[in-house]
Amino acid sequence: MKKLINDPEDVVDEMLDGMVAAYPDRLRRLDDAEVLVRADAPVDGKVGIVSGGGSGHEPTHGGFIGDGMLDGAAAGEVFTSPTADQLGSMIEACDGGEGVLAVVKNYEGDVMNFDTAAEMAGMEGVDVSQVVVNDDVAVEDSLYTSGRRGVAGTILVHKAAGAKAAEGADLDEVTRVAEKVIDNVATMGTALTSCITPDKGEPTFDLGEDEIELGIGIHGEPGTERTDIMSADEITEHLTENVLDDLDLDDGQEVVTIVNGMGGTPLMELFVVNKRLQELIDDHGLETWDAWVGDYMTSLDMDGASITVCAVDDELKELLSAPADTPGLTVTE
Amino acid sequence: MKKLINDPEDVVDEMLDGMVAAYPDRLRRLDDAEVLVRADAPVDGKVGIVSGGGSGHEPTHGGFIGDGMLDGAAAGEVFTSPTADQLGSMIEACDGGEGVLAVVKNYEGDVMNFDTAAEMAGMEGVDVSQVVVNDDVAVEDSLYTSGRRGVAGTILVHKAAGAKAAEGADLDEVTRVAEKVIDNVATMGTALTSCITPDKGEPTFDLGEDEIELGIGIHGEPGTERTDIMSADEITEHLTENVLDDLDLDDGQEVVTIVNGMGGTPLMELFVVNKRLQELIDDHGLETWDAWVGDYMTSLDMDGASITVCAVDDELKELLSAPADTPGLTVTE
Repeated sequence: MKKLINDPEDVVDEMLDGMVAAYPDRLRRLDDAEVLVRADAPVDGKVGIVSGGGSGHEPTHGGFIGDGMLDGAAAGEVFTSPTADQLGSMIEACDGGEGVLAVVKNYEGDVMNFDTAAEMAGMEGVDVSQVVVNDDVAVEDSLYTSGRRGVAGTILVHKAAGAKAAEGADLDEVTRVAEKVIDNVATMGTALTSCITPDKGEPTFDLGEDEIELGIGIHGEPGTERTDIMSADEITEHLTENVLDDLDLDDGQEVVTIVNGMGGTPLMELFVVNKRLQELIDDHGLETWDAWVGDYMTSLDMDGASITVCAVDDELKELLSAPADTPGLTVTE
Repeated sequence: MKKLINDPEDVVDEMLDGMVAAYPDRLRRLDDAEVLVRADAPVDGKVGIVSGGGSGHEPTHGGFIGDGMLDGAAAGEVFTSPTADQLGSMIEACDGGEGVLAVVKNYEGDVMNFDTAAEMAGMEGVDVSQVVVNDDVAVEDSLYTSGRRGVAGTILVHKAAGAKAAEGADLDEVTRVAEKVIDNVATMGTALTSCITPDKGEPTFDLGEDEIELGIGIHGEPGTERTDIMSADEITEHLTENVLDDLDLDDGQEVVTIVNGMGGTPLMELFVVNKRLQELIDDHGLETWDAWVGDYMTSLDMDGASITVCAVDDELKELLSAPADTPGLTVTE
């Protein structure tokens, strides 16, 4: 294994310190916790937006802390849910008196620990609302999931809910907007290589020299099929057709698209995928209102990409284009 | 070889189309050329800032086109200089009547072709100024270079010169600022794996399972030494000491630091490197004014990172923190 790390046991701890060292005016780490919050958290009079999950998906989630997006993010060990205690501390630290929305990706450990944390925070008098993102259309149920997995579409939930909270909306309204994104977003991904976790030091799964996995999860969980390597156009067609089949959109519908890199894929290749994706969107009579290309929800060093499509109405367009200022995503007016 | 591409011969062409498809309001491609310019180029009354070089370093350079940074970027084939014709077309397309600054990375082909292009544009009445970036302290002269190579420090030149041009400064002033960055910036990198070019389809150089290369170039050119794999802290110490030795800064000097990923390295590992880098900056009695962490100057899918340090005075701080709005870098007021 070749990684720019020290002791594998320290990688999350050192990463979080390295993030705070990069953005000391924006981020602060809770004492003795693998939790980052806004430097000025809690923001009085604003609904707090928090998320969290296993590490290895950077910039998710800590990279999206800042004005217009998240107030806090809990980082579990690599591919491991944060504990309920840590999630509870985060929720309390991000409550500015208007309650907190927790954006949870659909994995059993995350859902269970967020539930417990919400209950604990509730006993401390914090109003907590939760939404569960399940945008991955590849498989129903999987290694760590009942129902569909939560993947790159989560970032759109952060963005829309974060913008609504920044407007001063109450917890019900912020939650409604998060649910609206979840109802309208779908994603599917592919892996060209396995990721390698720091503690194991070897590939999580075996993939032949000429094989790829379609419908892969962001922890290397099996997808829908293993197939011979295909061209970027063929892969893009396969993923996009599955995503659009799921969404079943009307002619002329406006959408946001994301070509998301899995961590080891160069930006050059993501743009090659985006070229074909935009042709397909057009062929289907849809209209791209905004296109995102980059690494948003990664899987350590995995080589691969996912495609996300989200249908947007006037409300979502306003929220997704509202200003945001975070290490991982900046939107200007 | 596993890559998200179609025909290797089309990869640059398709990437550029994919970039325009992602940012149609910001970018425009010159007819029959591998050149991107601002959608509204040329900007009347503003000095144009252009750059270019071989592809494979994305988001460099096209990803830095936009308000406050570049007006145009020429993309050669992978690791191959753009032709003088293409560079000339770009320079003319970006001249708003106040002349054009070309930011050239120090590689023989780039320098030669930019020289020819500047001469051609000059004959068309365009006032052209050039600066050559040579921030890589690893080696004097190398495979494609007389003198030191131009690497990640180039992005700071784009940012400062772009901000100066946006202020309405004239070509001499914009050039002076670019030279000031070049005089104060130093970089050194390491590779954990070789990059694989699309046309060859196999590693550019051999690196053993337990070996790394220190002082690597962004095309996989040899560095200073090949050594056994080291910890992130040890690698960071080696690179940082070499960079700081070269700069020889006074106690209390403020600096911008960059931990730059080479394309295949997860953000998690870059933050682990940043943690140690900031400790070392502090140990040396220096002060980090701003820290950048991410993929700015990549080398296809190479696994590795580089460390850049740039000494800043009040003028450079003002220019580096001025607003910029590009796909690869956004700075808000």
